[in-house]
Amino acid sequence: MNFSSKLIEKAVDAFATLPGIGRKTALRLVLHLLRQDIRFTEQFSAALVNMRANIRNCSLCHNLADAEQCQICSDPRRDHSLICVVEGVRDLMAIEDTGQYRGLYHVLGGVISPIDGIGPADLNIDSLLQRIDQGTIREIIMAISPTIEGETTVFYISKKIQPNGPQLSTIARGVAFGGDLEYADEITLGRSIVARMPYSAK
Amino acid sequence: MNFSSKLIEKAVDAFATLPGIGRKTALRLVLHLLRQDIRFTEQFSAALVNMRANIRNCSLCHNLADAEQCQICSDPRRDHSLICVVEGVRDLMAIEDTGQYRGLYHVLGGVISPIDGIGPADLNIDSLLQRIDQGTIREIIMAISPTIEGETTVFYISKKIQPNGPQLSTIARGVAFGGDLEYADEITLGRSIVARMPYSAK
Repeated sequence: MNFSSKLIEKAVDAFATLPGIGRKTALRLVLHLLRQDIRFTEQFSAALVNMRANIRNCSLCHNLADAEQCQICSDPRRDHSLICVVEGVRDLMAIEDTGQYRGLYHVLGGVISPIDGIGPADLNIDSLLQRIDQGTIREIIMAISPTIEGETTVFYISKKIQPNGPQLSTIARGVAFGGDLEYADEITLGRSIVARMPYSAK
Repeated sequence: MNFSSKLIEKAVDAFATLPGIGRKTALRLVLHLLRQDIRFTEQFSAALVNMRANIRNCSLCHNLADAEQCQICSDPRRDHSLICVVEGVRDLMAIEDTGQYRGLYHVLGGVISPIDGIGPADLNIDSLLQRIDQGTIREIIMAISPTIEGETTVFYISKKIQPNGPQLSTIARGVAFGGDLEYADEITLGRSIVARMPYSAK
């Protein structure tokens, strides 16, 4: 594309470095900025720079935080004896959005994957074990993707937790609500037959 | 969505104000910024703020410009006796991308549209007539989208140009009626410039 302006070209290039944004979309965004007041662009940029400069990782659960501890860890109304272990902050946000969970979290920062060179030492596993060692945790819920790497990670952590430690559980696996049975994959369907639950009319 | 961080929330909101970007995409972009070095976000923001603060309209053709005149108007190798009239800068860029045109431009800033309250006085028509009055223009090429509003605008301008003024032509039909100029493919658009036809008011 030909912009006949270095300023426009640099701004388009900036947007186009973001994932999922091509140069045509980038140009549309730049022209949108041009139609707005200059303060719009200033506030937009300030929000990003301010976020990037001041965001931290929660010292307890490694969630994104504005302060030393994240809003969840510092909330006294939440159940501090429950930890839900997730791969990343997007999984944490997805669980928060369900409104079904009122305990704390622990963000691993990935899963064990030898093929990608990610071992247990690259993840926030030691800090999880330290939290467990303090003796106030009643249950650890593993909310990890059911992949080979995910299962490996769950297995590794389960072996690290002392037998007299907290209860270890995983989120329920099965056919999704509202999903058609015939479209469920074979492994999910097979396992949900094996792991069938007693029916109780509500 | 629940972010448990005001900084993240503000950054997501900033991205989500842009056209075509929802909150899920916005979150993905914010998390992308977090994975990059802090200088990435600083340079990204600086490119946008710098662009917005320093971009101007070319004093001659109203194209986006880094200086008093745009790169096209200040290029002595281009044919300064030829003016291609376009609705907006995206149309200008689309024509430039064809590589078929070596004259100058004039950006109207829209088309006459009574239903949207846009009259001739809201467009850069007076400055076009002033450029024509200087007597050095040989031909005016109207590259306006073939819509009712576009045709009206071409008709209006044709009536304003003196009979002893420059030749008036329109880009060749080949661009579908009712189609937006900026979405035409490069070959069609390029050929329409080359095979332009003399304009005759119907």
